[in-house]
Amino acid sequence: MHSSKIMWLLLLVSHFTQAHQADGSLYSDDFLKQTKALRDRALDDDLAYRITESLTTEVGARLAGSPGDAKAVAWAQEKFKELGFDRVVIEPVKLTRWTRGEETAAVIAPYPHQLAVTALGRTLPTPESGLTGELIHFNTLAELEAAEPSEVKGKITFISNRMERHQDGSGYGKAVGARSKTAQVTAAKGGIAAIIRSIGTDDNRTPHTGAAQYDEAIASVPAGAVSNPDADLLVNMLKRDQPVVLNLKLTSHWDGEYTSHNVIGDMLGTSQKEQFIVIGCHLDSWDLGTGAIDDASGCGITMAAAKLINEHIGPLKKTIRVVLWANEEYGLSGAKAYHQAQKNNLTNHILGGESDFGAGEIYALGTRVAAESMPIINQMMTLLRPLGIKYSNNQSSSGADLIPLRQAGMAVFSLRQDGTDYFDYHHTANDTLDKIDPKALAQNVAAWVVVTAMAANTEHDFGFGLKE
Amino acid sequence: MHSSKIMWLLLLVSHFTQAHQADGSLYSDDFLKQTKALRDRALDDDLAYRITESLTTEVGARLAGSPGDAKAVAWAQEKFKELGFDRVVIEPVKLTRWTRGEETAAVIAPYPHQLAVTALGRTLPTPESGLTGELIHFNTLAELEAAEPSEVKGKITFISNRMERHQDGSGYGKAVGARSKTAQVTAAKGGIAAIIRSIGTDDNRTPHTGAAQYDEAIASVPAGAVSNPDADLLVNMLKRDQPVVLNLKLTSHWDGEYTSHNVIGDMLGTSQKEQFIVIGCHLDSWDLGTGAIDDASGCGITMAAAKLINEHIGPLKKTIRVVLWANEEYGLSGAKAYHQAQKNNLTNHILGGESDFGAGEIYALGTRVAAESMPIINQMMTLLRPLGIKYSNNQSSSGADLIPLRQAGMAVFSLRQDGTDYFDYHHTANDTLDKIDPKALAQNVAAWVVVTAMAANTEHDFGFGLKE
Repeated sequence: MHSSKIMWLLLLVSHFTQAHQADGSLYSDDFLKQTKALRDRALDDDLAYRITESLTTEVGARLAGSPGDAKAVAWAQEKFKELGFDRVVIEPVKLTRWTRGEETAAVIAPYPHQLAVTALGRTLPTPESGLTGELIHFNTLAELEAAEPSEVKGKITFISNRMERHQDGSGYGKAVGARSKTAQVTAAKGGIAAIIRSIGTDDNRTPHTGAAQYDEAIASVPAGAVSNPDADLLVNMLKRDQPVVLNLKLTSHWDGEYTSHNVIGDMLGTSQKEQFIVIGCHLDSWDLGTGAIDDASGCGITMAAAKLINEHIGPLKKTIRVVLWANEEYGLSGAKAYHQAQKNNLTNHILGGESDFGAGEIYALGTRVAAESMPIINQMMTLLRPLGIKYSNNQSSSGADLIPLRQAGMAVFSLRQDGTDYFDYHHTANDTLDKIDPKALAQNVAAWVVVTAMAANTEHDFGFGLKE
Repeated sequence: MHSSKIMWLLLLVSHFTQAHQADGSLYSDDFLKQTKALRDRALDDDLAYRITESLTTEVGARLAGSPGDAKAVAWAQEKFKELGFDRVVIEPVKLTRWTRGEETAAVIAPYPHQLAVTALGRTLPTPESGLTGELIHFNTLAELEAAEPSEVKGKITFISNRMERHQDGSGYGKAVGARSKTAQVTAAKGGIAAIIRSIGTDDNRTPHTGAAQYDEAIASVPAGAVSNPDADLLVNMLKRDQPVVLNLKLTSHWDGEYTSHNVIGDMLGTSQKEQFIVIGCHLDSWDLGTGAIDDASGCGITMAAAKLINEHIGPLKKTIRVVLWANEEYGLSGAKAYHQAQKNNLTNHILGGESDFGAGEIYALGTRVAAESMPIINQMMTLLRPLGIKYSNNQSSSGADLIPLRQAGMAVFSLRQDGTDYFDYHHTANDTLDKIDPKALAQNVAAWVVVTAMAANTEHDFGFGLKE
């Protein structure tokens, strides 16, 4: 480890020097003119929308391990070829399959109601006949964590905290702990099942699924999310100070080993063919909707950006690698498999970005690059500002699928999308094509064209080995 | 019939004279001051919201003939008593019960998808195992009506027209024919089932139910509505010019005779105790949501208005009758039963209004009254304008439950609500309490207080026997 760190440092020194030399005349006038023209052309181009429509219509739901997963992998190979990618490969990704079963919830007393419920990903099943228990209500996960086991024992816990709406989606991080942790915390205190208010900003009867923490060695219970209106109903009912009794049936379960695939399309570079600008999206989706904003739109944006660059500017110095990652949703399985497969080749991964925050307009660029790369970033910003994009900062973390590469030292960027409405639909049956504004999608492509082309058409390195 | 018409004419003459005499000094200053004060008080009052919350929480879904129906009748009697109504009666309403069963729809080819579907009210069941057929697509009901039977025979019809959004809900009338008629038109042409795009303005995976025309003597087929996103998906799929094959399972069915009840609460008048200002809502709801905007809010508004008048102004000259109508949704059963029961007493029904268009702010008053009643209407308008309400016209038709009384000759009014969002939620699982803005609901109560109090506190008749 120590010797490889030294090697990285040496690499860094050489790259920093290179960047410094290039400062002032980073790109040819011709290339800058072509990039600007393509940026503007992309604003009127519908390729990303057509790709997104194709994936959501011809495949639809594609939970890792489901029949849709294999269809999506076949679709992606076909689509890369149709778009003229130079090299299309699939990479096996082993995972343990989680399968959704039936999901129903009903208040039995004091006032019978059917509730809209969905199982949290990776949770355990109730008995086939369901289970029945009295609700115990907590306003927050912290309240549940602080509760006496004697209060919780034998009961169904209910956490009712509501996610806040913000452009940058920052309400998610504050609220999502309830989803991640309630099954294990409830089990530890002797509860028999857990429900939470959906981690979402909408008022639709479309509950939000999403992964819960799971570890075979740690006790857990069946856990589901009810929709926001159903959570409101329960809260109102609980105010009446009578026991609220729920029947819950969630037959989702772990279901054996499965091999999915990352699908990788390369537009090969010229002078640095084996140096990669890694962009992409995740190919899997939750199973309730057609995975349009999570994450078909990200696939449409990044596949279209690479295709448009190749078609209108031509091959650049470095290779543009578009990775459609497998099983982001309940395991980051594709990201881990890729990192493992590339472990002797990590330093060839020059700069990475993932589009995985819906289809809203991009309002900011964030980076995590060497200080010496800032002249290039500044040059990118010159072309991004006319799209309404400002520079954020150099502490970006990019998408979830890039975590292993970033932790290994790869430089990353993040084109930050307006997420004001993202959590209205995220992980619900409502994640469908109609939620995407084609104009906003095109603006995304224009921005990805700029960053990707400029990152690929330089021999500069963006600083491998940056500390977290 | 002829002699009773003459009697009505004589009555009209006497009432017109009365109105003319009262002109210029229609109400005492004290009463006007009290009404104004109560109007303003109502804007800060939450009684209507509390009633609406109570019905949607303690009863919830209450489709005519379902367990919720009987619970709602019991709830209503109790609530009227709690609010201090002078006379509470229930009136039997016989109906043939329609019951929703399972409902699933799936595209089998070319691209498998699960669809969000709901049965249209009063339609026939598919076999228990479902039925499978190729889709035939029509953009409008008119296109289906014009189709050759040979095109439709053996197929599942699909009408994809989309409802327009307007403040006054006028898009509904233009679009709803597809829902009303497709089952019978499809059957007449040899189709095996029918699906339509939901009659709704939203983009949620919450399909809109609602009644279809039904007559035992006319052939029909199972019929359902898919959500707007699902309809979009089908339209996109159909563009690919491959047969689209659907499996449809809708086990809803007619289910024998049932006796529901209108629930009637009277705040008794003084000098004209047996003359009625008839206000109200319908007590039943569709079964997918909790019937909050359709029509618990109407019950909250009108029950609260009568209660506030009685509490803060006291008994008025005429009786304020609040009718919670049974089975509006698939039969107008309560409206017909009341009309039948009151057939010798119709002329005592002086003026009627129903609140059945959600919970949006009121923006206009419409009427259907004798020309001689306009001074009173003008006086009402003086108190309504500060609420942002304008006068519409004298061709109002009021709510569906008043059709039999209006056709018999009763004068009516309509306090028109902003329906811009109404058809996002109407007849869906999304019709829940969170869709109601308490401030808008209070504005409704303020307006109903003004019209109801001023109509009840005069010996004027509003012109029974007006021609349609």
